[in-house]
Amino acid sequence: MPIYEEMSAAQLSAAYAKEKAHYEDCKAQGLSLNMARGKPSKAQLDEVSGLLTAISSVDDCFADNTDVRNYGELAGMPSARAFWADILGCKPEQTVIGGTSSLNLAFDVISRAYTHGLLHSPKPWGKEEKVKFLCPAPGYDRHFRITEFFGAELITIPMTTTGPDMDLVELYIKDPAVKGIWCVPKYSNPDGIIYSDETVHRLASMKPAAPDFAIMWDNAYCVHEFEGDYVEFPDIIGLCQQYGNADMVYEFASTSKITFAGAGVSVLACSEANVGYFLKLFSVQMISYDKVNQLRHVRYLKDKKNTIALMKRHAAIMAPKFRVVAEYLEKQITPCGFGSWNDPKGGYFVSMNTMPGTAKRALALCKEAGVEMTPAGATYPYGIDPNDSNIRIAPSLPPVEELEKAMDIFCTCLKMAALEKLMNK
Amino acid sequence: MPIYEEMSAAQLSAAYAKEKAHYEDCKAQGLSLNMARGKPSKAQLDEVSGLLTAISSVDDCFADNTDVRNYGELAGMPSARAFWADILGCKPEQTVIGGTSSLNLAFDVISRAYTHGLLHSPKPWGKEEKVKFLCPAPGYDRHFRITEFFGAELITIPMTTTGPDMDLVELYIKDPAVKGIWCVPKYSNPDGIIYSDETVHRLASMKPAAPDFAIMWDNAYCVHEFEGDYVEFPDIIGLCQQYGNADMVYEFASTSKITFAGAGVSVLACSEANVGYFLKLFSVQMISYDKVNQLRHVRYLKDKKNTIALMKRHAAIMAPKFRVVAEYLEKQITPCGFGSWNDPKGGYFVSMNTMPGTAKRALALCKEAGVEMTPAGATYPYGIDPNDSNIRIAPSLPPVEELEKAMDIFCTCLKMAALEKLMNK
Repeated sequence: MPIYEEMSAAQLSAAYAKEKAHYEDCKAQGLSLNMARGKPSKAQLDEVSGLLTAISSVDDCFADNTDVRNYGELAGMPSARAFWADILGCKPEQTVIGGTSSLNLAFDVISRAYTHGLLHSPKPWGKEEKVKFLCPAPGYDRHFRITEFFGAELITIPMTTTGPDMDLVELYIKDPAVKGIWCVPKYSNPDGIIYSDETVHRLASMKPAAPDFAIMWDNAYCVHEFEGDYVEFPDIIGLCQQYGNADMVYEFASTSKITFAGAGVSVLACSEANVGYFLKLFSVQMISYDKVNQLRHVRYLKDKKNTIALMKRHAAIMAPKFRVVAEYLEKQITPCGFGSWNDPKGGYFVSMNTMPGTAKRALALCKEAGVEMTPAGATYPYGIDPNDSNIRIAPSLPPVEELEKAMDIFCTCLKMAALEKLMNK
Repeated sequence: MPIYEEMSAAQLSAAYAKEKAHYEDCKAQGLSLNMARGKPSKAQLDEVSGLLTAISSVDDCFADNTDVRNYGELAGMPSARAFWADILGCKPEQTVIGGTSSLNLAFDVISRAYTHGLLHSPKPWGKEEKVKFLCPAPGYDRHFRITEFFGAELITIPMTTTGPDMDLVELYIKDPAVKGIWCVPKYSNPDGIIYSDETVHRLASMKPAAPDFAIMWDNAYCVHEFEGDYVEFPDIIGLCQQYGNADMVYEFASTSKITFAGAGVSVLACSEANVGYFLKLFSVQMISYDKVNQLRHVRYLKDKKNTIALMKRHAAIMAPKFRVVAEYLEKQITPCGFGSWNDPKGGYFVSMNTMPGTAKRALALCKEAGVEMTPAGATYPYGIDPNDSNIRIAPSLPPVEELEKAMDIFCTCLKMAALEKLMNK
C-alpha cells in the first residue's frame, strides 16, 4: 500500500470505504470512552488509599505546635512547607501551601496582579492600557484561559524540543506591555518536553522591560516520570535570585497527580519578599487553608524520597497506557505517511500533530463514536490552532482494554479525516 | 461605693490604685490568654473527631455516581448540595459547594464583581467611577476589609436590636453607586442580633438604584445556638425571588464552627441564574473543590436534624463560657456604672460598649498583661469606631478556668481605662 499522499483517487476511495466501515462498526457499539483530561485512573487513586487513614485520631491532629483542626497558619503547616521545599529544591520560607488546586493559586496571582499589582508593579495590570502575555504553544488551555479571562493579549510562542523559542521570548520582553509567560518546565503539557538547562538559564536571567514581569512556572509534573528514573530539575527560585531576578518567578505544584486529583495539596513557591506580599493579600480572603489535609499529606508522603518511590508505583500503572498509544499510532498511522507525535517519559500527555487542517474533523468523528478528546485547538491561545493539526491525547484515565478501543477509533478517525481532505483536493 | 461618674478625685485615685495593684499582680503571672477570634475550643474539635474516620476506605469514596478522589463536579457533590439546601431552606440547584472557607467564596464574588461584574452589572465595578458598600456596624472586620481592599467606600449603617437601620438602608440604596450590603442575619457578629422578620422582608423587597446590588448574606451562625432551642430562619433566596429580586442575594455558610474551623466545607447559595453565572467564572480558576471533604462531611453530619443535635453538644461546651463573661461583667462592671453589653443566645461573640473613648486604652492594657482581644475599632469600617467604645469578646477558645482569668484581667483593664479618663477630665 502506498502512503496516503501518493494514492490515486480510486485508492483513496477504497481506503476511505474500509476505514468508514470499521468506524460504523465501532459507532454501533455505543461506546463511551474518555481521553480528554489528565485524570488519574482508579488504579492510581486506589494505590494511595493509605492517605485516607493518615489522620484518624485526635492525637494525629497535632504537629508543629499547632492543632490542624483550628484556624491559623495562613502560610501552611511548617512541615508541609518543608515537604514542598524538599521536592522543589527551594527554602521552606519560600513557600505558601494552598488548597486542593494549584490552578487556583495561579489564578489568584494573576487576579491580584490585575486588581492590586504584583510586588514591583507601577500600577495594577487592570489600569494598564494593554497587557500582553507569552503563551508557549502547544500549551495548557487552562493557563491561557486565565490570562484571557482578564483581558490580556495572548502571544503564541512556538515550543521547540528544548522549551519555548527563547530568541522570540527575548525579543518580546523588550515590550513593557509584555507582563509574563506561562511555563510548564518539566514534561510540558502537552509536549512532554523538559526545558533544557540553557532555556531555564535564559529565562531566569531575562531582563524584561516590565519591572513586574511574571514567570508563571507551573511545575505540575516535577516528580511525574512514568518511564526511567527520576530526572533532577533546577530550583528556579534560587536561579532567578542568582541572576538578580529574585521576585520574577512564581512556581506552582500540587499533589493532584501524586495522591488525589480532587483533594490534594498545592503550593506557591516564590521569593521571601513575594511570600510576604502574597500572604498580606491572601489574608483578606482566607483565614487559613485546609491544614488537616496538609498534615494528612505530610504524614502519608513523608518526604521527596518516599514520594519518588510512590511515583514509581504510579509509573507501573501509567507506562503500559503510553505504550498502547505509541503502538497504535505506529501501527495504524505511520504506514499512512502523515502525522508525528512525541514520546514522553513523564507527564500526562502525548502530543500529536495530525495532517494539517484535519484535527477538528478527526475529533468530531471521535465524538460521534463516543470517544471524548481534548477539543482540537485547545492547546493554542484562544483555542485556535492555526494549522488545525495539534491533538492532545490523555491516556491516563481509561483502563488498558478501554484505551485500546479508544485508540483504535481515534486512529480510524485520524485516517478518515486525512483521506477526506485528500479526496476533496 | 458610688459609681465612677459620681466619685470624687480622691475616690477615683483610690479606686485606680486598687485596680492597678491587681493589674500588676496579674501581669506578673506572665499569662498568655486569647479572646480575640471566634475559634472553637479543643473540646469542641474533639467532639467532632468522628469526622476524621468518616471516609477511610476506597469503598467510602463513591457517591452520587462519582469517585470523590478524582477531578470533577465543580458545583459540588449532589449530596453535599442537598445537605446545605436542607440546612439553608433553599434548593440544591441554588448551591455551590466551596472549599474550607466561606470568606473566600464571598471574596471571590466581590473580586469577580470588580473584574467582570455580577450578572446584572452594566460594567465591572472596577470600571465604575465610585462604588459604595453598606456596612452595618458593629460588624465583622473581615467583611469590611474585602470591600475596602477593592477600593469601595464603606458606609456605616448603625445596628439596631432588629438588624441594620432599615430607614437608612432604604435611603442609601437610591444612590446607584451603592452596590451592596454586608449582613450576618442570625446572631450577628458581634452583637448576636437576629434580624427581625420585618428587617428581612424589607431587605428582600428592596428596589435599589443599582441593578447589580448585592446582599452579601453571611449566614455564618445559622444553626449556632448555644442557649435554648434551634431558631428557624427564613430562606432568603426564596424570599428575594418572591419580591422579584431573585438575583440580588448571595448567601454564605460553612461548617467551620460545626466541625473543624480550619478544614470544613463552605457553601454559596444564590439563584439558579447566579449559580450558572458563577460556575462559569469559577471554572476558570478551579477544576473542582475538595469532594473527599464534602463527602466526609455529608457522611458525618448526615442532615439538618443530626447537625442541630450536634450543635447542642457544642452548646454544652460554649454556654458556660458565655455565662462566665456575663457574670464577670455584671459583678465587676455593673457596680461601676458604665458600659453595656448584649446577652446573645447563639453565635460566637459578646459585644460590649465600654465608656466612650476608652476601648483602645483598655485593650492596650489587656495586651500588656497577656490577654489578646480583637483590636478596638475592628467592628467598624476602616477599623475606626467613632466612639472608641465597642469591644468584641470572643470567649469560645479558652477553657473556663483560663477564661475566668482573662475576664478578670479584661474587667480590670476596662475599669483602669475608665478611671484614667475620669481622672484626666
